[in-house]
Amino acid sequence: MKRIVIGFCGGSGSGKSTLARKVKEEFGDQATIVCMDSFYKAQPNTTYEERCKTNYDHPDAFDADIMLQCVKDLKEGRDTKVPVYDFTIHNRSDQPWEDVKSTPIIVLDGILLFAFPQLVELMDVKVFVDTDADVRILRRLHRDVRKRGRSVESVMEQYLGTVKPMHETYVEPYKRLADIIVPEGGRNTVACAMIFSYLRSL
Amino acid sequence: MKRIVIGFCGGSGSGKSTLARKVKEEFGDQATIVCMDSFYKAQPNTTYEERCKTNYDHPDAFDADIMLQCVKDLKEGRDTKVPVYDFTIHNRSDQPWEDVKSTPIIVLDGILLFAFPQLVELMDVKVFVDTDADVRILRRLHRDVRKRGRSVESVMEQYLGTVKPMHETYVEPYKRLADIIVPEGGRNTVACAMIFSYLRSL
Repeated sequence: MKRIVIGFCGGSGSGKSTLARKVKEEFGDQATIVCMDSFYKAQPNTTYEERCKTNYDHPDAFDADIMLQCVKDLKEGRDTKVPVYDFTIHNRSDQPWEDVKSTPIIVLDGILLFAFPQLVELMDVKVFVDTDADVRILRRLHRDVRKRGRSVESVMEQYLGTVKPMHETYVEPYKRLADIIVPEGGRNTVACAMIFSYLRSL
Repeated sequence: MKRIVIGFCGGSGSGKSTLARKVKEEFGDQATIVCMDSFYKAQPNTTYEERCKTNYDHPDAFDADIMLQCVKDLKEGRDTKVPVYDFTIHNRSDQPWEDVKSTPIIVLDGILLFAFPQLVELMDVKVFVDTDADVRILRRLHRDVRKRGRSVESVMEQYLGTVKPMHETYVEPYKRLADIIVPEGGRNTVACAMIFSYLRSL
């Protein structure tokens, strides 16, 4: 059976994960979400303080080989396993890798998705979720301050120090690789319906 | 029977008319293209020289009432007539208005389409075709110099004098009204297929 790989790329707070989840909700067992965050590199022999300084918004923070092999497996119909990442310790978890089934629709979700050319080659549909930078930082701030207990100052510092410059270098320029650009992500009902009907037609 | 109005907006040379034609080709008798150019205002009692100076890239150059009534008629299932515009004299033609059938799919094609809020309200699907400005001016230049016999200088003057500033004021800002943004217009096969399958599902 043919597998369709659809990638949702876009900045932090753009709404791409919401859109990815909507595809999963619509297609249920027929779809699997693979989140790029799972592939953050393991950082052995480092202290927590050192890992806090890692630039997680740069492509080098990801284990591209594992990510690529995993998506290849899924696309070719083989079930696979993905590593588990633990955000609280900024490191790969000791937990066993998670089973991921090869379903007809493989949904990739990640900020830097389009910055990996070999990954882009595996995608049948490339969607860039485009939301104004001010809206995106507000969503991120709200999430980090209210749900993750961080201070406004630390969010600001990280945003201006790495998130924004990395966005401008490794996210925004790859918008031109997209097949379609969706303003506002998961809240965009016409775009959702359009993506659903296209996936169904494939 | 329900009528679907889909609008293709985008700058000069963006590829929006190609995309509109592809929808027509795909759906044949089930689709009708209405081109916004048909609704340029009649300019009675003016000389050719005066009409050469009109700013045709501003919303005021269009007969909004007629355009709106025409699209309303089509959407509500009534066949209608649209005026004929003669580009060679920069004026509405004396020819009888053209018959337009109310088909299940009504395709609107126009640079300034999204600058008319009442027209936007009638659209079920809003597509913005987004192509880099340098690619767009090259396409326009090629068309005007090779097919319309104009000089490079006159194309430059018009582009910098009105086309570009009007684009920045009345086209680009309305991109945010779009349900989806299509990079590169008619050459984008995935986006075409996505639009076709969505229209079919409706």
